[in-house]
Amino acid sequence: MIIAADNLRITDPTIAMAIERYDPAPIAAMIRRCEAAGADWIDLNAGPLSREPEKRMTFLVEAVCAVTRLPLLLDTVNPRALGAGLAASRNPTAINGFSLEPSKLARILPLARQYGCDIIGYLLYPDSQVPPDESELIGVALALYDAFHKAGLDDSQLIIDPVVAPLIWADGAQHNRHLLALIRNLPDLLGFPVRTIAGLSNLSTGRMPKPVKHLLQRAFLPMLAAAGLRCALMDAFQPETVQTARACEAMCDSGIFSWGQLISP
Amino acid sequence: MIIAADNLRITDPTIAMAIERYDPAPIAAMIRRCEAAGADWIDLNAGPLSREPEKRMTFLVEAVCAVTRLPLLLDTVNPRALGAGLAASRNPTAINGFSLEPSKLARILPLARQYGCDIIGYLLYPDSQVPPDESELIGVALALYDAFHKAGLDDSQLIIDPVVAPLIWADGAQHNRHLLALIRNLPDLLGFPVRTIAGLSNLSTGRMPKPVKHLLQRAFLPMLAAAGLRCALMDAFQPETVQTARACEAMCDSGIFSWGQLISP
Repeated sequence: MIIAADNLRITDPTIAMAIERYDPAPIAAMIRRCEAAGADWIDLNAGPLSREPEKRMTFLVEAVCAVTRLPLLLDTVNPRALGAGLAASRNPTAINGFSLEPSKLARILPLARQYGCDIIGYLLYPDSQVPPDESELIGVALALYDAFHKAGLDDSQLIIDPVVAPLIWADGAQHNRHLLALIRNLPDLLGFPVRTIAGLSNLSTGRMPKPVKHLLQRAFLPMLAAAGLRCALMDAFQPETVQTARACEAMCDSGIFSWGQLISP
Repeated sequence: MIIAADNLRITDPTIAMAIERYDPAPIAAMIRRCEAAGADWIDLNAGPLSREPEKRMTFLVEAVCAVTRLPLLLDTVNPRALGAGLAASRNPTAINGFSLEPSKLARILPLARQYGCDIIGYLLYPDSQVPPDESELIGVALALYDAFHKAGLDDSQLIIDPVVAPLIWADGAQHNRHLLALIRNLPDLLGFPVRTIAGLSNLSTGRMPKPVKHLLQRAFLPMLAAAGLRCALMDAFQPETVQTARACEAMCDSGIFSWGQLISP
């Protein structure tokens, strides 16, 4: 299982200020910490970047590429920022992401063809609402794949994010059970071994004690892994969650188990 | 998810000596500790009880029933001990267990009819070997159910244990992936919502550091829960594993999630 760190976020005041001041040091420190913690990919959650989108994303990507060779996910809804980031990156870089929302189909999906990069597709309705059950998720997945395919992209470029529901939603737990079935069935449904990604922190959005949040994330991660999830977008600074991901890897990804694969707890 | 504590074992010298000396105090202390730790059921692993089987099992069951109302699993291969234990118990009590092994079909399975109790059936070949894949597991499950049904028992009395493989086996991880698929498919296969149980400690049999054992158990438990496992036979004295079971319960067993259901970590 691939661990994509979600720690670099514009909602972190230190990161927001570093981008505002074009100061690479806090960004470099964060990236080094993610890599040391065991991250395999790094998500750069840059927010909408409404001011100076190209300049800011170029700065951010260059600051990151200066300190790591890890693959990056460019996480912004701003197509201009995405284009600049993809042009500036020296690392394997994917777009995070598109959905059936008309503006994303029109302005973000084509960037994956232009830059020949991977792209994450969210299983959301065109109005960004979450489909209520597996049958609706399947409908959205087929429509998303159709749009992806018509944009001239290769199957190998697609990563599907079926969107984990917060457990505080009345039907959140039930939705996530549908989501596990969907992850298991997607390769058969689309006819190729499509990769999947899921954002673990979504699960515990809302007011609950932090230890409960982490407990729930550590319990949901193996369910996702057993369903065939390829990549978990998660807090890389939770060592127990990282260890859980490694334990899942040992049990799910290879034919032969070796506990030497595990980070020593 | 039901937590069945596997802590009371004849391999524990304190328990072995308590049974040898007919001293109920260490047994009572162990049972109280299991219940306080969150156990829902208690497995009484009495070993083969080759000497004084009826007397010893009666003593053990009476010592346990004196301090708890929790359901019990009588875990011995000795049919005489089982009969005595079932006769002595005042708590809901199940037999753990039978398999396609001829002596167990002949002498243990009939006890479930005689005492009208639940019984655990192991998915093992008649020679007690582990079937290698899901298709073989299905064959054994059907044969086991056939024998169970012919013994005049009701579907509601059956609990299936598909036998977790140790990860140190060359194909252990692969076997356990087949096992997850089997647990998911068993209700459709048998045509009723059959209950399943799995022994978590089997997973980490062999030489590996204890923290790694517990990490693996905590990661495998949610996979079992998501597949539909009803009961985990496990070490109730691992609070993090108990918490993981409760987190699985909150996500898998009910339509509505409440983190208040979780034991405060």
